[in-house]
Amino acid sequence: MLTGERTGTDGTGAGGAGRVLQLIREGQAVTRADLARRTGLARSTVAQRVDALIAHQLVYEAGGRASTGGRPPTVLAFNERAGVVLAADLGATHSRLAVADLAGEPLVEQAYDLDIAAGPAAVLEWIQARYESLLADAGRGPADVLGIGVGIPAPVASGRGEPVAPPIMPGWDGFSIPRWFAAHYDAPVLVDNDVNIMALGEHWTHWRDVEHLLYVKVGTGIGCGIVADRHIHRGAQGAAGDIGHIRIAGHDDVVCRCGNVGCLEAVAGGRALAHRLTQAGLEAKTSRDVVGLVRAGEPLAIQIVRDAGRHLGEVLAGAVNFFNPGAVVVGGDIGDAHQQLLAGVREVAIRRSLPMATRDLRMVPSQLGDRAGVVGAAIMVIEHVLDPDAIDRVVRTPVPLT
Amino acid sequence: MLTGERTGTDGTGAGGAGRVLQLIREGQAVTRADLARRTGLARSTVAQRVDALIAHQLVYEAGGRASTGGRPPTVLAFNERAGVVLAADLGATHSRLAVADLAGEPLVEQAYDLDIAAGPAAVLEWIQARYESLLADAGRGPADVLGIGVGIPAPVASGRGEPVAPPIMPGWDGFSIPRWFAAHYDAPVLVDNDVNIMALGEHWTHWRDVEHLLYVKVGTGIGCGIVADRHIHRGAQGAAGDIGHIRIAGHDDVVCRCGNVGCLEAVAGGRALAHRLTQAGLEAKTSRDVVGLVRAGEPLAIQIVRDAGRHLGEVLAGAVNFFNPGAVVVGGDIGDAHQQLLAGVREVAIRRSLPMATRDLRMVPSQLGDRAGVVGAAIMVIEHVLDPDAIDRVVRTPVPLT
Repeated sequence: MLTGERTGTDGTGAGGAGRVLQLIREGQAVTRADLARRTGLARSTVAQRVDALIAHQLVYEAGGRASTGGRPPTVLAFNERAGVVLAADLGATHSRLAVADLAGEPLVEQAYDLDIAAGPAAVLEWIQARYESLLADAGRGPADVLGIGVGIPAPVASGRGEPVAPPIMPGWDGFSIPRWFAAHYDAPVLVDNDVNIMALGEHWTHWRDVEHLLYVKVGTGIGCGIVADRHIHRGAQGAAGDIGHIRIAGHDDVVCRCGNVGCLEAVAGGRALAHRLTQAGLEAKTSRDVVGLVRAGEPLAIQIVRDAGRHLGEVLAGAVNFFNPGAVVVGGDIGDAHQQLLAGVREVAIRRSLPMATRDLRMVPSQLGDRAGVVGAAIMVIEHVLDPDAIDRVVRTPVPLT
Repeated sequence: MLTGERTGTDGTGAGGAGRVLQLIREGQAVTRADLARRTGLARSTVAQRVDALIAHQLVYEAGGRASTGGRPPTVLAFNERAGVVLAADLGATHSRLAVADLAGEPLVEQAYDLDIAAGPAAVLEWIQARYESLLADAGRGPADVLGIGVGIPAPVASGRGEPVAPPIMPGWDGFSIPRWFAAHYDAPVLVDNDVNIMALGEHWTHWRDVEHLLYVKVGTGIGCGIVADRHIHRGAQGAAGDIGHIRIAGHDDVVCRCGNVGCLEAVAGGRALAHRLTQAGLEAKTSRDVVGLVRAGEPLAIQIVRDAGRHLGEVLAGAVNFFNPGAVVVGGDIGDAHQQLLAGVREVAIRRSLPMATRDLRMVPSQLGDRAGVVGAAIMVIEHVLDPDAIDRVVRTPVPLT
């Protein structure tokens, strides 16, 4: 369906089938007449493009629309079921997999325990077995898979889909996840850092009107996904958003695993909080245990999470002054204990940021919660597959006879 | 020449005259055959587009090129002299004005003293008189002006060209600079914060291969221009880059003019440094005086500028971890005493940033120095005027008969 050879020329761009599909998908133009007006193309060219998209089952005629007179124009709609994508959000100990349609809507979705330290071969074999079963549950097969999106808890070499020196993923350094999946699916595989796909999922689902957004994950560690001009900002080496090692004032006695002192993560990350609770005689090994104690009303746990929020707020104040986002979304295990954490964040971040940068700033909890990653992984690969240039390479006019 | 009515439709985009001009300007395709290959357009359409661009004097035939046989193809070139732009970099007490060609090359350029606190009417009248004289020096007139780019030392309301609550520009709050110039020139007027245009000038001139760049201006105050994905990042309210009010550790006894304590600018800005030198019995009123003392070898001045570099380095370490730029360029009056300042910046920023984010990071002095702003102001408006969509609206095929 969405297969076709790459050609040597540029896509036909603003006049191509990809642009026409984009306008239909986004609801900006849903009749042939609208499309001609929006693209400046001749009616006959628009008709050809639409025919090609229909032949590729990417667009269908959804019936007529009330008109001011004469025959009502036919409304065109994007066929969200033209294929599926596979999405994965892999954490150190948990994962979430989904089969999603081309609107990013999960057809089936499931959370699992996972030991990512078991290494790439074991983990990917296991994921592939889950995907086969999930595809069957969705009534689909491998041939329907148009793309695979994977989020991992590590920096990723941009464009290559390989983890780079991942501290909590032994055996994965430089391993090509796309190459592994190539044996099973004839589809592009995109891999990104988990915080980036969470930012993408949250932005796409709830904040599309916001141009610049920060998604802050507070779990065992602390990281930040950056949406700049509606796109993920990965930085020069794909290392952007690593706010866990920014120095906070007054904690130079705390040594971080990175070797520096006073890092945010060493003071306010889930591991640090659990350690402090354990020292006080409470039972807390993971960030989830910390959240459990907060939920149980344990005063010390509430206090240290609130303090963690203040420290995070100090760093976010700097990020807000520097980046001036329209929204800051807080998620992750500890982030989900958000009332206490967010209160601390807001208290400090608003006081320490300039009024102009915070005037319309929204600082809110994640709405997708632990689903943000898998939703973002699906969106990442859908946007890649349906990119106008990619569509232009596949959907040629006239329609191939095969 | 570059006048024409806006039409209601989208530009013709990848197939339009604007895209063809862009390919010629950037040297990506310089013959009609190359253009057809790169755009996927029919040869006849390319020929029409090129004819229209030639008729509008935006492109000329630059002669033949060695060919493998037969008649050599005609090489097309962008006519950088098709018009001029006016550029201004306005500071609190100094300014720099230029008339530049469409390659951003200044035809005439001049630095002046300026009291921006005299208010918009007086300042803009004075600038307009200078422009008339500079245009005459360049052998051009008002009809040749295709755009005006202005940088001011204040936040600017995005898209409106109005200063917003500018602390050092009394009388300018909400004043429309574009409207004022409309009485003199039939051309777009773009206004931006001075640090943003400096970042743009530096990026365009020396760092085009770098996607993400920070330009840090250290003068009386401290500010940062952000280039993200080769474009200026202005943030949700146009307030991005305000790093002068990020809190640095260990200076909570220093009260900033913003009302907070421990702000970078209150510790390491030119005003703070001058104040400290004055207290020590040295003569220093402005940031330029501080630089003078450093150049004269005054030990205390050298020491405090070096310390200022360390404090700046702490904040930039946070910015580097957060944003992961490919280059950090340091400019401004104090930045120009760069050996001492940069030494401090590098010392702390490299130590406090994660290795992955600094592996290929270049931290360097501004190469344009006090010309960065006026060059950036010219580039800003040239990119606007020659944007493919803007060209498509003006250069219609067939060529108008006027």
